[in-house]
Amino acid sequence: VNSPDPLNTPDPILDSPPVLPRGFRCASRNVGLKPEAKDLTLFAADADCAAAAVFTRNQFPGAPVILGRETIKGGALRAIVVNSKVSNVATGEQGIENARRMAAAAAKEVGTEAARVLVSSTGVIGVPLPIEKIVKGIAGIAGELQDDPMPGALGIMTTDSHPKVLSAKAGSATITWIAKGAGMIEPNMATMLVYIFTDAKFDAAELDAMLRRAVDVSFNMLSVDTDTSTSDTCVIMASGAAGAVDAVEFERVLAAGSIRMAEIIARDGEGAKHLIKVEVRRAKDRREARLVAKSVVNSPLVKTMIHGADPNVGRLLMAIGKCFDATIDAAKTDAWINGHQVVRGGVRGSFDERTVRAALTDEVVLIEIDLGVGDARSTAFGCDLSKGYIEENAAYYSS
Amino acid sequence: VNSPDPLNTPDPILDSPPVLPRGFRCASRNVGLKPEAKDLTLFAADADCAAAAVFTRNQFPGAPVILGRETIKGGALRAIVVNSKVSNVATGEQGIENARRMAAAAAKEVGTEAARVLVSSTGVIGVPLPIEKIVKGIAGIAGELQDDPMPGALGIMTTDSHPKVLSAKAGSATITWIAKGAGMIEPNMATMLVYIFTDAKFDAAELDAMLRRAVDVSFNMLSVDTDTSTSDTCVIMASGAAGAVDAVEFERVLAAGSIRMAEIIARDGEGAKHLIKVEVRRAKDRREARLVAKSVVNSPLVKTMIHGADPNVGRLLMAIGKCFDATIDAAKTDAWINGHQVVRGGVRGSFDERTVRAALTDEVVLIEIDLGVGDARSTAFGCDLSKGYIEENAAYYSS
Repeated sequence: VNSPDPLNTPDPILDSPPVLPRGFRCASRNVGLKPEAKDLTLFAADADCAAAAVFTRNQFPGAPVILGRETIKGGALRAIVVNSKVSNVATGEQGIENARRMAAAAAKEVGTEAARVLVSSTGVIGVPLPIEKIVKGIAGIAGELQDDPMPGALGIMTTDSHPKVLSAKAGSATITWIAKGAGMIEPNMATMLVYIFTDAKFDAAELDAMLRRAVDVSFNMLSVDTDTSTSDTCVIMASGAAGAVDAVEFERVLAAGSIRMAEIIARDGEGAKHLIKVEVRRAKDRREARLVAKSVVNSPLVKTMIHGADPNVGRLLMAIGKCFDATIDAAKTDAWINGHQVVRGGVRGSFDERTVRAALTDEVVLIEIDLGVGDARSTAFGCDLSKGYIEENAAYYSS
Repeated sequence: VNSPDPLNTPDPILDSPPVLPRGFRCASRNVGLKPEAKDLTLFAADADCAAAAVFTRNQFPGAPVILGRETIKGGALRAIVVNSKVSNVATGEQGIENARRMAAAAAKEVGTEAARVLVSSTGVIGVPLPIEKIVKGIAGIAGELQDDPMPGALGIMTTDSHPKVLSAKAGSATITWIAKGAGMIEPNMATMLVYIFTDAKFDAAELDAMLRRAVDVSFNMLSVDTDTSTSDTCVIMASGAAGAVDAVEFERVLAAGSIRMAEIIARDGEGAKHLIKVEVRRAKDRREARLVAKSVVNSPLVKTMIHGADPNVGRLLMAIGKCFDATIDAAKTDAWINGHQVVRGGVRGSFDERTVRAALTDEVVLIEIDLGVGDARSTAFGCDLSKGYIEENAAYYSS
């Protein structure tokens, strides 16, 4: 499949309220892990679906990720069960056993086997999963399954400030993304928790290839704080209820919607007020384009500059220049902030400071960087760094 | 020279007030770059000294760094002239010309040629150097040169909360470090501004080799915020007034004092309340030991955990595990916080939470990590991440 550039295609996201594609339903409950909020979620299909998934590259993956890698080998899923509050990471053999029990309980509910159920857990690392509460809480949840995606989006939230769900059309098929994520986010092989449902008909191998390419330009280019979670999971399930659709069009929409969801997650970064997009052009090759884009989007001094709407644009050069092994020609380096050129030939350009200061208060700050040494490009997604991030993370465990 | 482990040798720093070694004097002035504080500093030797230096690896080095690389090729220095407030970075050809004029003005003051004067500028990037004020301000400063290092340490400060100067003895010789640095610090080839003076007798090649090894275990393992300055410079000048000293002993003291200065700079990281030391043991090789130590010391979630004295120790595993290409065996990974074991075999160990919470309030937090896969070790130096960092950096340019 020859995919068009998903960054330069029309936004496919529907304006109308998101829906679950044909063949999927969801439900969520409070089972006592959190005081009141929903903490257990079930996504279920009417029948087995072709499925693919990518997971965190962190070398201390959670028990659900270890189990999930095994489960997804089957290429088919009937359901996804998710708990929040406790991530079941660094919990040893007991953690794996608990993840298996969670899969089995959900499988029983929807009338399939445990090998057809993907498990996710998100929350604190290193605390035993309250498995008895979860197993007990799963019982009967199948009776609450319904068509609206919102209970699922609400059920998987942790420090998210709002539920995250999008729908788009690809030919006759619908694609729906349901995600959570706000901190400990620099995915590399996968992402926070992102569940993608479609009624298009593809087999597991096709889904796997398309998912990896879509993740590569979206969730893998997203960084809130450079910290890579031990639980990152991105899954796609295809019910086939809408029949076959054009693969090129499907992949375009899959990638564009994933980018849109990556932007939504970045914007909701802990304590953030801005979505920062860093678009690097004319890099020597794709690896270097990604490296420079990530360096700029992750620089604490660039992030605080945007947070303070302070046009201290020399920090952009600093953040480009600290990519020691990238091909940088100072004299050819240009940069823009929301369309205003601030760097010319590696030197701070003359610009109206008030105008750039105002541009930095926009909710979306686009930093364009032209390296002038090749023809590769890449875009990274991030957010500003604020006191709110410190507040949320200096006492997350205790709260 | 076979250097002993400088991390495990007696601390050589003198308790008595620091002094400039024989043959060196300094002076500082306000020349109008800042409202009132000292902003121009001259370090001068009585005669040409053997000298060596390392500089930032940032690909947008400041004009003083570009000029300094040329100057240090001569292997001899008579003086160092430093201004704060404006860094003379991203200022193009005019910036180089201004750095040359600054060197020439200082050379004239001390009766040497410009090629014997190293220039440093620190402060905002991308703003023209106020060279007329500087040249005018240098005139007559030689008459103020004196023996106390403190005016020099005060003159080079920017966001530092205190002047940074240390002295130590190596045999009959004295070594004195004068440094500044608080943010935009993840040096890689060199460091913030660190000037080292000694009256020991070594030639430029010997100094260069010893300096590089000392920097490698000290300033190159220091990170306040992962951002690598465009101006980092570390210079050593040796007057020879104390004659020859034992090279092994000299290098031990040079490295140990540089580590001590790196710790002081980390502790003074913008907004920081803690020095964080991350000691990685039994890594596969030195590269991996350094990678893991840096990953942990730089993790925003580890930094905020310490800031909040919140024993959310799973974050240590996350930060180790995100070194995707390091050799990690979860079952062999142990970790301690100020002597209290918190991770056993890759799993959160059982520990008294109140004790670890109390340990996290210590000014110095030592995180020990045993990877159990080899025999390499490395220690990294950093600090916690607080709202103070955001405050300082959201409006640095404007302030």
